[in-house]
Amino acid sequence: MSKSKAHRVGVIMNGVTGRMGTNQHLMRSVSAIIKQGGVKVSETERIMPDPVLVGRNELKLRKLSEISGVEKISTDLDSLLKDPAYTIYFDAQTTERRTEAVKKAIAAGKHIYCEKPTATNSREAMELFKLAKAAKLKNGVVQDKLWLPGFIKLKTLVETGFFGRILAIRGEFGYWVFDGKPVPAQRPSWNYRKQDGGSMILDMFPHWRYVLDNVFGKVKAVSCVATTHIPKRIDEEGKPYKCTADDAAFAMFELEGGVFASFNSSWSVRVRRDDLLNIQVDGTHGSAVAGLRQVYIQPLAATPKPIWNPDAEDLTDYYKDWTLMPDTIEYDNAFKVQWELFLKHVVCNTPFRWTLEEGAKGVQLAEKAMESWKKKAWVKV
Amino acid sequence: MSKSKAHRVGVIMNGVTGRMGTNQHLMRSVSAIIKQGGVKVSETERIMPDPVLVGRNELKLRKLSEISGVEKISTDLDSLLKDPAYTIYFDAQTTERRTEAVKKAIAAGKHIYCEKPTATNSREAMELFKLAKAAKLKNGVVQDKLWLPGFIKLKTLVETGFFGRILAIRGEFGYWVFDGKPVPAQRPSWNYRKQDGGSMILDMFPHWRYVLDNVFGKVKAVSCVATTHIPKRIDEEGKPYKCTADDAAFAMFELEGGVFASFNSSWSVRVRRDDLLNIQVDGTHGSAVAGLRQVYIQPLAATPKPIWNPDAEDLTDYYKDWTLMPDTIEYDNAFKVQWELFLKHVVCNTPFRWTLEEGAKGVQLAEKAMESWKKKAWVKV
Amino acid sequence: MSKSKAHRVGVIMNGVTGRMGTNQHLMRSVSAIIKQGGVKVSETERIMPDPVLVGRNELKLRKLSEISGVEKISTDLDSLLKDPAYTIYFDAQTTERRTEAVKKAIAAGKHIYCEKPTATNSREAMELFKLAKAAKLKNGVVQDKLWLPGFIKLKTLVETGFFGRILAIRGEFGYWVFDGKPVPAQRPSWNYRKQDGGSMILDMFPHWRYVLDNVFGKVKAVSCVATTHIPKRIDEEGKPYKCTADDAAFAMFELEGGVFASFNSSWSVRVRRDDLLNIQVDGTHGSAVAGLRQVYIQPLAATPKPIWNPDAEDLTDYYKDWTLMPDTIEYDNAFKVQWELFLKHVVCNTPFRWTLEEGAKGVQLAEKAMESWKKKAWVKV
Amino acid sequence: MSKSKAHRVGVIMNGVTGRMGTNQHLMRSVSAIIKQGGVKVSETERIMPDPVLVGRNELKLRKLSEISGVEKISTDLDSLLKDPAYTIYFDAQTTERRTEAVKKAIAAGKHIYCEKPTATNSREAMELFKLAKAAKLKNGVVQDKLWLPGFIKLKTLVETGFFGRILAIRGEFGYWVFDGKPVPAQRPSWNYRKQDGGSMILDMFPHWRYVLDNVFGKVKAVSCVATTHIPKRIDEEGKPYKCTADDAAFAMFELEGGVFASFNSSWSVRVRRDDLLNIQVDGTHGSAVAGLRQVYIQPLAATPKPIWNPDAEDLTDYYKDWTLMPDTIEYDNAFKVQWELFLKHVVCNTPFRWTLEEGAKGVQLAEKAMESWKKKAWVKV
Repeated sequence: MSKSKAHRVGVIMNGVTGRMGTNQHLMRSVSAIIKQGGVKVSETERIMPDPVLVGRNELKLRKLSEISGVEKISTDLDSLLKDPAYTIYFDAQTTERRTEAVKKAIAAGKHIYCEKPTATNSREAMELFKLAKAAKLKNGVVQDKLWLPGFIKLKTLVETGFFGRILAIRGEFGYWVFDGKPVPAQRPSWNYRKQDGGSMILDMFPHWRYVLDNVFGKVKAVSCVATTHIPKRIDEEGKPYKCTADDAAFAMFELEGGVFASFNSSWSVRVRRDDLLNIQVDGTHGSAVAGLRQVYIQPLAATPKPIWNPDAEDLTDYYKDWTLMPDTIEYDNAFKVQWELFLKHVVCNTPFRWTLEEGAKGVQLAEKAMESWKKKAWVKV
Repeated sequence: MSKSKAHRVGVIMNGVTGRMGTNQHLMRSVSAIIKQGGVKVSETERIMPDPVLVGRNELKLRKLSEISGVEKISTDLDSLLKDPAYTIYFDAQTTERRTEAVKKAIAAGKHIYCEKPTATNSREAMELFKLAKAAKLKNGVVQDKLWLPGFIKLKTLVETGFFGRILAIRGEFGYWVFDGKPVPAQRPSWNYRKQDGGSMILDMFPHWRYVLDNVFGKVKAVSCVATTHIPKRIDEEGKPYKCTADDAAFAMFELEGGVFASFNSSWSVRVRRDDLLNIQVDGTHGSAVAGLRQVYIQPLAATPKPIWNPDAEDLTDYYKDWTLMPDTIEYDNAFKVQWELFLKHVVCNTPFRWTLEEGAKGVQLAEKAMESWKKKAWVKV
Repeated sequence: MSKSKAHRVGVIMNGVTGRMGTNQHLMRSVSAIIKQGGVKVSETERIMPDPVLVGRNELKLRKLSEISGVEKISTDLDSLLKDPAYTIYFDAQTTERRTEAVKKAIAAGKHIYCEKPTATNSREAMELFKLAKAAKLKNGVVQDKLWLPGFIKLKTLVETGFFGRILAIRGEFGYWVFDGKPVPAQRPSWNYRKQDGGSMILDMFPHWRYVLDNVFGKVKAVSCVATTHIPKRIDEEGKPYKCTADDAAFAMFELEGGVFASFNSSWSVRVRRDDLLNIQVDGTHGSAVAGLRQVYIQPLAATPKPIWNPDAEDLTDYYKDWTLMPDTIEYDNAFKVQWELFLKHVVCNTPFRWTLEEGAKGVQLAEKAMESWKKKAWVKV
Repeated sequence: MSKSKAHRVGVIMNGVTGRMGTNQHLMRSVSAIIKQGGVKVSETERIMPDPVLVGRNELKLRKLSEISGVEKISTDLDSLLKDPAYTIYFDAQTTERRTEAVKKAIAAGKHIYCEKPTATNSREAMELFKLAKAAKLKNGVVQDKLWLPGFIKLKTLVETGFFGRILAIRGEFGYWVFDGKPVPAQRPSWNYRKQDGGSMILDMFPHWRYVLDNVFGKVKAVSCVATTHIPKRIDEEGKPYKCTADDAAFAMFELEGGVFASFNSSWSVRVRRDDLLNIQVDGTHGSAVAGLRQVYIQPLAATPKPIWNPDAEDLTDYYKDWTLMPDTIEYDNAFKVQWELFLKHVVCNTPFRWTLEEGAKGVQLAEKAMESWKKKAWVKV
């Protein structure tokens, strides 16, 4: 690509010192895009991101700069927001800090791209969208799961009519997160503290919203109960703490057309299934069980005819009639794919429908689920 | 057992010309008990059932008599009810006919044993119990799943403290029932007609009630939605008919102690799991996934530590860390086991807690689930 | 069925001393039907065939009577044809003898059921149909392959729309028939002598006709060449003989709608495929490869994306993306199924579309194929 | 080879910016030959190609130069043709452009080596040969498949008499080419447009010609029908286009000696066989099934004796009696092997029988096949 024209795009990357920010957004997305020579737009044009890493801890930033090859770092967000060399503001801070920072960036006329949830409540999340829209700024929210191979395959199945009429959807998410003693926990402790933004519902329901909305049909209503399975855990410093956030949620969603989706999400479940997230879709003409990357399918013609006979030993292997869906395209990193789409959206004005409004919808579903839990009733979305 | 004293017990078996009645209650239970020489009570005593087969079609009864070796048949229930030689009345008719027949049998002073559901509504079901109680008659309802190896093993796990504190329960029941064209359906057509007593909720929720109540804890509340996935099917004669009954139900139960159980039941689901009915139980100290006969377990010490990383291909085999629970006792036919317990209850007055009241509870849960579906809210039980 | 009314049907079975006649028509069809208590028509009615075995060799007939349990035998066909106790005439003689015998049976007013080919040329085959029709006699031709599990499954796939639009069909039939020295041949020597009715085209094309017509679409045109691969063989007595009949045929059929079917038939081919007869069907939405009993399917969603790169070693296993179609119904013997349908047709007047006319069509296709071979051009059917 | 004398041979490489030209002819053939130190002729002599890359897009040429290490590039073919430093003209342009360019090169006295098809019709293709011959120029056409391991092995089997008398040949070529939505097609869109030179017959029949002619015997006649299975596809830019070229062809060839070869070629077939191209050869003494690289063989002595019995379940594994033919020599890239032979032919006058005349024969077979399709009759070749 060395001979093509490069559109340079300055990107303020705020909050990339966290795990997701560093690994997914910096290393595997922006740095990877730079290394591959930018985003190809046509035979003669490409987009080259020019990032600056922003954070509060200069030491961490220096280390990041070293491993990523991104030279510019700063602890002074306000100055950067004034700098016209940067047209995009990206935010991967904790949810609590995000809203205010995004508002400032909008005020400074930057295009906005940020992690989800975009705010701790849907009112604020929606406000962010309205502000960006009023300022005619481009905006987007990370919805990475949509570009995971498993979901691309599911979408392909829907589009090619594999399922016939879709009947129902079953989601099982989660795995066993150790409580810290003696085995250290594999998730950060703030995940289990409401006061620090932790909550299964708040964390995962925004994902379920865009996955359901985009792949199967708009979410119309939710019924949810949640609980805190493990009331006490040991934190990163080896100290016990009280878990104040829900760590498991049992939900049903009603999609347009009356399709029900049953979704269990838990950090206290042991995994006897193909993947940490499994989504089964049943239709009149076929079914699929999708993991994050692999999808097993069973068309009507391969559907066995089980006989319900509890009396006899059933030696049937119910796994054998499923076929692994082959990879027919190459799958790039899901985060990087969305970054490339957003950069093209900003530079070439190509469509990008994963806006702050879509992000707000995710936050809204989490809120409605919590309302349903409180009311012990279905809530319309 | 040939030398021991036999207590002869006359049993009126009404409605055993149906599939379940013939196979489970007559052939595999009462006939099998006769063939094994009765129910052993002690070294010197045994109980020998002396059945008479009752029905409306004499031709069918004769055929039944031939294959079962039970010589007595009759189409005249009323005369039999007057005959003091028969002390037990068993009913496996369709639900619609059951209530009235059981009432007559109670009036005639017979001990009652019958199939579930005991009535089409819980008011009547409860009335049956009260009538039997007032008449000081012994009574019982078939709750066969409790004696399936899978549930016996689950109960063993609960009783030995394997789970630690139980956190949550997930049930998945169902399989693909063909709609009749071109592949014939493997269930009778009345199952899909409300007017003929069909309904997934009515059929299976009584089972979920006694399984949950007996193995895990009393059901306190239910949230349920249901649907009719397949609106038209082909019946036994090759004729299309309208499906008026629910064929899939998505439910959550709250048990005493605040444990949630999520239960999906469907006749339009393709099976990617170990068995047609799978119940996963997660506890602080271990988890189990039970089928009808086999149970896989994973104690805390065998629990792997998955890392959530959608970006990388996950080649983990999540099935490998589960251990098949070995058979440590011999499992007799579940129906037969309960028959033997009821016969002993009648003759020797041994305890038998699966009474008509318990049967009424099953019907009640189905009703409450339907109420919840209508109200779109949780309903207390 | 002992109490239901039995309709007795006298059947003259002529030529059942041959391999096919004995095994398929007598032992596995008519005898089996008698043993199962007849053909069930309704709860109260059934049809009971009452056969007489006819042939020229009394010794052979006696042996047959012994193994089959059919008591009546006769070497006098003419007398039987006059006997009103027999309403059906069945013929499994060699093709040369069949035409005349069938004509006599029609003249005697018997319903006709016979093996294929119904005559050595389509003119005569068609004449048989016209005679039977004019005499208002019921008539049928054996088309057993239609009731083989493989073809029932293919038909199910067609009917349920599995293939989408069908694009093309590929048939491969045949296997290695040893030439007799030193390994004895596994087929009779007359198969390889034109003068004795032998010929691959004459033997198999009637099958291809009804399979294609019934499962995929009417055959409209044929292009065929044939050859005699092995010019000399050793007969049953160990003597060499000249092979005068074609033993391999390479054909293309055009079906209505412009679908092409390529069919290779050979007794000098070694088998590297799933079954002795393999039929591959490709459609826009899926493909199937059917053997006589098993069918492998690959829906669009399971279709891999091979890259044509002769340069690199291709380690792809092209068999792994196919799923074995499960058995969803019970498959009875194909010959017996058609016998039962014909008996019902005669007694209850139920539809039966595999008439002598359909049999004539099979002979016609063989003729047209031979004409194409001679002309070296496509011939319309 | 560094000490041996190098014969420098100037090669004009025209049209190597396409996929085949770049990968096979430049990178894996000419560049690879240069990297290995040239073509060894004897202990003291070698041939060193000295290529210049010619095309219309300078940018693409520069990129090619970079990756291949070939320094000379040019967009001015006419000047190069005048340059005596270049003695060989190689052409891998699209077929439409090829004829004229080759003519000019012949006029300029260059030896000719080019891709197939050498022209869009056999008259022109033959003219090219006659012109080159008249000018006493060496000439050759790419017939790479002959040097694929699979075909070298087949030829070995023929030459060593493995087959005995060859009876028949069956070819199956093809795989599923996606139509572009949602899965992108894995072949260029021009393949499916007649007006752009697309056509299964035009693409593959030249291959079948030289494979059959060289390995089994001269093609004497052809019968062919073709079709366009998929009438609409999505092109590289995501736009739908009409498919005007045949994408599947069903052909029979008659070889000298009366051997028939049945060849199905399709881009809309799902692959249940060993390789994307499978050629089965049956002979009196043995059979072989060849893929591009691997060959399975079954000699008479290993031939099983199947019994045709559709009535019984056939559990025979017909794959197990075949033996994988071992690699006994090292197989170099097929394109490179032919390049080396041509370079030796030019420099050392060694024999080279894959001339422009042979190339013309390939084009002729495609034409005759199309004539046969139109006439619906066999056509002599």
